[in-house]
Amino acid sequence: MREKTAEQLEKKAKLCEEIIDRYLPVPKGYYAVLTDAMRYSVNAGGKRIRPVIMMETCKIFGGAPSAILEPFVAAIEMIHTYSLIHDDLPAMDNDDYRRGRKTTHKVYGEAIAILAGDGLLNLAYEVASSAFDAGTYTDRVIKALKILAKKPGFSGMIGGQTIDIEAEKDHIEISEDSLKTMYDLKTAALMECAMMIGATLAGASDKVVSEIEKIAGLFGLAFQIQDDILDIKGDAAKLGKPVGSDEKNNKPTYAAILGTDIAAEKVAELSNAAIDKLKIFMAANPEYDGFLADLFEYMINREK
Amino acid sequence: MREKTAEQLEKKAKLCEEIIDRYLPVPKGYYAVLTDAMRYSVNAGGKRIRPVIMMETCKIFGGAPSAILEPFVAAIEMIHTYSLIHDDLPAMDNDDYRRGRKTTHKVYGEAIAILAGDGLLNLAYEVASSAFDAGTYTDRVIKALKILAKKPGFSGMIGGQTIDIEAEKDHIEISEDSLKTMYDLKTAALMECAMMIGATLAGASDKVVSEIEKIAGLFGLAFQIQDDILDIKGDAAKLGKPVGSDEKNNKPTYAAILGTDIAAEKVAELSNAAIDKLKIFMAANPEYDGFLADLFEYMINREK
Repeated sequence: MREKTAEQLEKKAKLCEEIIDRYLPVPKGYYAVLTDAMRYSVNAGGKRIRPVIMMETCKIFGGAPSAILEPFVAAIEMIHTYSLIHDDLPAMDNDDYRRGRKTTHKVYGEAIAILAGDGLLNLAYEVASSAFDAGTYTDRVIKALKILAKKPGFSGMIGGQTIDIEAEKDHIEISEDSLKTMYDLKTAALMECAMMIGATLAGASDKVVSEIEKIAGLFGLAFQIQDDILDIKGDAAKLGKPVGSDEKNNKPTYAAILGTDIAAEKVAELSNAAIDKLKIFMAANPEYDGFLADLFEYMINREK
Repeated sequence: MREKTAEQLEKKAKLCEEIIDRYLPVPKGYYAVLTDAMRYSVNAGGKRIRPVIMMETCKIFGGAPSAILEPFVAAIEMIHTYSLIHDDLPAMDNDDYRRGRKTTHKVYGEAIAILAGDGLLNLAYEVASSAFDAGTYTDRVIKALKILAKKPGFSGMIGGQTIDIEAEKDHIEISEDSLKTMYDLKTAALMECAMMIGATLAGASDKVVSEIEKIAGLFGLAFQIQDDILDIKGDAAKLGKPVGSDEKNNKPTYAAILGTDIAAEKVAELSNAAIDKLKIFMAANPEYDGFLADLFEYMINREK
């Protein structure tokens, strides 16, 4: 079962990569180094979880025309990638490697890395707004665009990154409430963004989209805690980056504060709650093959 | 006449500031430092040229409901401000002062400055997409949003910043063509963005918007060359920043290459061409008071 899920994920991720690639600029002209750096960063691999869960959620609710879905599939991965480029900068987490490859600023220098991140964030909205060109389901595209603009922003992902940075800098004990907010924003917000857009583009009601937001929030939190556990107990070769980097950076994490055993229980509890809720929606569409629940299970038991 | 234009500009800039302020988040909670830094950067002053020329261009073509115009007025200044925050970073131009105040990273540190820039770029799209809430002129809002996503991006402003950074780094002689492209993108693109959105929201046709793009391009180029001349010949006290910083950074400029006299002739030639074209559109609306032409004239003869 795990192998089959891994195989399916790889296939779906490849499909997402093909979509994203079509929306990335071809390096040419005087600013070729910029578009080159943007491509390098997006093509650095990764599981493409966010675009995959967007597409799967969309399927659960009956799907959407590719002309409105695909721009958002590309956009969410561009936003995720920009956040990694900026996170890796010397002034932020100062990471030289990611997924076994040199980080963007190690290859192109800091200035181009900053601009490549800016370029990808900006491009995400340029690409997403091309969904209007389909001339269909304009109301859904507007709603999706608003989600795409809100969740990664100051009150979402960037807010979470700020709490993270401040906690490291101060070397103070972070309150559990503040830690929870950080996790909700830093990782969960983008998962919520992906799943909510998938449901919205398929025409799900606002009430259903709000239920999907909760499911994504539970999964996102479980995903991030699992990430922290791997940073303590993981295998550097499998992860493609050194372990223990959170400790090095004085990063406060659930796993460090509660211990990895209790943290693992928390992961199981959160992901079971997410999967239970998700199954209700999946049951309503007998044509859906159930992959998203398998993926949740797979991701929170991953070793990398 | 110059004094009257300056007075009017100040009044209009103040109005823009009030609009922008309404769309900026109030600092609170765990990430208050982020929203605080975003506010500090936007409130650092400046002439608010981009929002002002957006509003004026809109007026020339008959105006637009404030519920669709004001979000874009705020958004364009947020994008301009984010570009300044990132431009000032140590890895970029490494400037400690701007408009007589400490730059964002000097006050909040580099990490928060990077995030505040990201936050403002992201917020621009969140705010702009709130124009859909008006429920009117959806087609115009879509067009305006697409312009807002394209012009500041990799093929616009960020592309121009890249050429700038690369030229400094290489210490090589930049070709005139590459220099022209850099100016067109780095500064003119955002002027084009502002004026095109103003015209679009007022309902101008695609053909007219494309003429407005050319006018803004001429003005943007003149504006940037004037900026370079001021960097060589200007008065540091009036400018609020040290002069000679371009030379310090090995920044290739028209003024440095051609000399300030020939550069000044170029400024006059470009701005006259822009004003001549603009007057044709202004003449078509007898209710318009002609301020935008006065502003062009004023800006290219400015001392700060």
